[in-house]
Amino acid sequence: MKPHGPIPPGFAADEDGMLLIGGDRADTLTDMAGDTPLFVYDSAMLTARVAAWRAAMPAEVQLHFAMKANPYPPLLAFMARLVDGFDVASGGELKAAIDSGMAAAHVSFAGPGKRDRELEAAIIAGATLNLESAGEAARALSIAARNGVTPRLAVRVNPDFDLKGSGMKMGGGAKPFGVDAAEVPALVRRLIAAGADWQGFHIFAGSQALDAAAIADTQAQTVALAARLADEIGATPPLVNLGGGMGVPYFSSDTAVDAAAVGSALGETLAVRPPVLADSRFAMELGRWLVAEAGVYLTRIVDRKTSHGETFLVTDGGLHHQLAASGNFGTVIRRNYPIAVANAFGRDPTETVSVVGCLCTPLDRLGDQVALPRADVGDLIAIFQAGAYGASASPAAFLGQGSAREMLI
Amino acid sequence: MKPHGPIPPGFAADEDGMLLIGGDRADTLTDMAGDTPLFVYDSAMLTARVAAWRAAMPAEVQLHFAMKANPYPPLLAFMARLVDGFDVASGGELKAAIDSGMAAAHVSFAGPGKRDRELEAAIIAGATLNLESAGEAARALSIAARNGVTPRLAVRVNPDFDLKGSGMKMGGGAKPFGVDAAEVPALVRRLIAAGADWQGFHIFAGSQALDAAAIADTQAQTVALAARLADEIGATPPLVNLGGGMGVPYFSSDTAVDAAAVGSALGETLAVRPPVLADSRFAMELGRWLVAEAGVYLTRIVDRKTSHGETFLVTDGGLHHQLAASGNFGTVIRRNYPIAVANAFGRDPTETVSVVGCLCTPLDRLGDQVALPRADVGDLIAIFQAGAYGASASPAAFLGQGSAREMLI
Repeated sequence: MKPHGPIPPGFAADEDGMLLIGGDRADTLTDMAGDTPLFVYDSAMLTARVAAWRAAMPAEVQLHFAMKANPYPPLLAFMARLVDGFDVASGGELKAAIDSGMAAAHVSFAGPGKRDRELEAAIIAGATLNLESAGEAARALSIAARNGVTPRLAVRVNPDFDLKGSGMKMGGGAKPFGVDAAEVPALVRRLIAAGADWQGFHIFAGSQALDAAAIADTQAQTVALAARLADEIGATPPLVNLGGGMGVPYFSSDTAVDAAAVGSALGETLAVRPPVLADSRFAMELGRWLVAEAGVYLTRIVDRKTSHGETFLVTDGGLHHQLAASGNFGTVIRRNYPIAVANAFGRDPTETVSVVGCLCTPLDRLGDQVALPRADVGDLIAIFQAGAYGASASPAAFLGQGSAREMLI
Repeated sequence: MKPHGPIPPGFAADEDGMLLIGGDRADTLTDMAGDTPLFVYDSAMLTARVAAWRAAMPAEVQLHFAMKANPYPPLLAFMARLVDGFDVASGGELKAAIDSGMAAAHVSFAGPGKRDRELEAAIIAGATLNLESAGEAARALSIAARNGVTPRLAVRVNPDFDLKGSGMKMGGGAKPFGVDAAEVPALVRRLIAAGADWQGFHIFAGSQALDAAAIADTQAQTVALAARLADEIGATPPLVNLGGGMGVPYFSSDTAVDAAAVGSALGETLAVRPPVLADSRFAMELGRWLVAEAGVYLTRIVDRKTSHGETFLVTDGGLHHQLAASGNFGTVIRRNYPIAVANAFGRDPTETVSVVGCLCTPLDRLGDQVALPRADVGDLIAIFQAGAYGASASPAAFLGQGSAREMLI
């Protein structure tokens, strides 16, 4: 038997043992959706999550949603009313952000490989470009001049530090992201001299960290770096995007990040910030932390079989919807995401089984030797923390199984 | 500097140093396609590959294409005229196989999580189901009876051996695939007694192996297992699908599998096969080996930048089209696929660079510290062995960058 990750708080069952999501029975939701597999996103949990963030953080810090975590259009439209801005990573995401109702002036666009037509779309829309290199800056200025538009330009800084314990390190040493800190002041001075509307800095040191002290330490370093750069430039950055970093507990040894501790430390950091940042606004850019817990992936058991004494539950889902949960995306050692039998939720485990997907590859394993209550063909398996980097971050076309359904409730 | 995989034989440049694919310049192809990134599949290489396989193998062995490797419809239509059958892994692939012009009688359907509606579609179409469990067999018989159709049923056997050195082990011990060998005779007898049209065995021990001796040894074990099962059943299997196994060289230490050695050994194995298999047909089921080399992924450099002394070429492609090449699909240690500057093909390397995709994640690396000739913004990068498990096996929706174009020439 191998452990699985912790079921997120707030989920319960009705008297039949059926998992409830947003007050609805899991089987009612799959009936409403018409089929499994199904991603369900609970809007009440999204609202609660944003409220919890605002309660924990200093009031002056704005909240941006990194829509790469979940670009499902109804969810975007819902998030657009809750947060202060969207961060996008492509022309496609820029269009989806505008479609969601988010004002372009509150959209910023980062990404190391922006094509000219993407730069142009952002400049014309009035979104902020987080510039990733001197070359990109030159292209953006040229495109803006050709269009007769004053571009809103920020500079993404490649910091000299990373976020300790983060699942994805985005800073520290040679990186494809942003402009090395040492080169930033000269670049910003050129942007200002060229007449651009300089928007400030984007400094993203890492993501998916659970240690509040590490996040707080990185934020303090980020504010100090922004101040040092601003002093060198001789101008106050209108906005300092502090990046993200707050992760969620996927695995059995993980515990949720202490948001109150992060917010308290950030308040102290901002209270004593250098004068050059006195009039700066600050933002955090969160994806996973805002939406992962609100999502549940429901997949139906198609076969139950025994091979050499081991029991397999074969589902109609798999890595084509849940690549990360299968352990095949950015992880070295496969571990189990939080998993449950949706129609026997909260019941004591009675057997050890492996839950696999329907793809014809040994990589397609959603739960490896997990202890679960007895489940049979037709029963529903639930994978939690499914609201981020699920449907859109998986190879949906693989083996012709098709995309999962999605539903915001 | 880190090595990259070997450029497949048969690629050359014109006098400008531009890579030729099927006789066409790479830049002409991207112009014809309208944009990059672009997967180009060379039909002449597909034809040559199938011919090479037939020249190497015993004449009595049939060739099936495992379409999961590349389901691009024009490529399927082309392959349908070259091979003896298609192997599919979902209802979606079944439909694509039929659309390609392949007769349903030459289509077989394996996969551990077949839903009732997929079983029904295959039975009505007259395709062969490779049954994965006793439960699936019962469902198939019931669906066939309800439709008044005699189903074509084979049994997928979970062998007690695996393919040594294979990238994907599909047999040996407890597996979600197939029926444990010990239980196969009783199941086949039940199928025959129920009036099904028993088609034989599907025995797939592993894939992506490069050692001809290991493949030959596995094939000999497979034939012996088929004979033992047939003796126990007391009936000759009409077809023994020997699985696949023949891989392609992705990495610097890889060498191409010796197909002639595989074919010669298989000829010897079949020549001395037990009498119960005298009238059986045999097939190999190949995906990657048939189509990988014929594919080239072309992506354009959008930015060239230096960070802490390292040079990055940022392209408009990435892991959303080339997940495996980025090292994030079924591999533990990231290694470089074969890579080149398409417009300086064959020229001596002059610098060490990292080639990254346009996604905002450190996972998105197509070439890590590879030695290449100097390349700048606008130049084309080529990734080879791109004809299998590329476009359809990658998270195309990730970060809203969109799918790559595909073209069969």
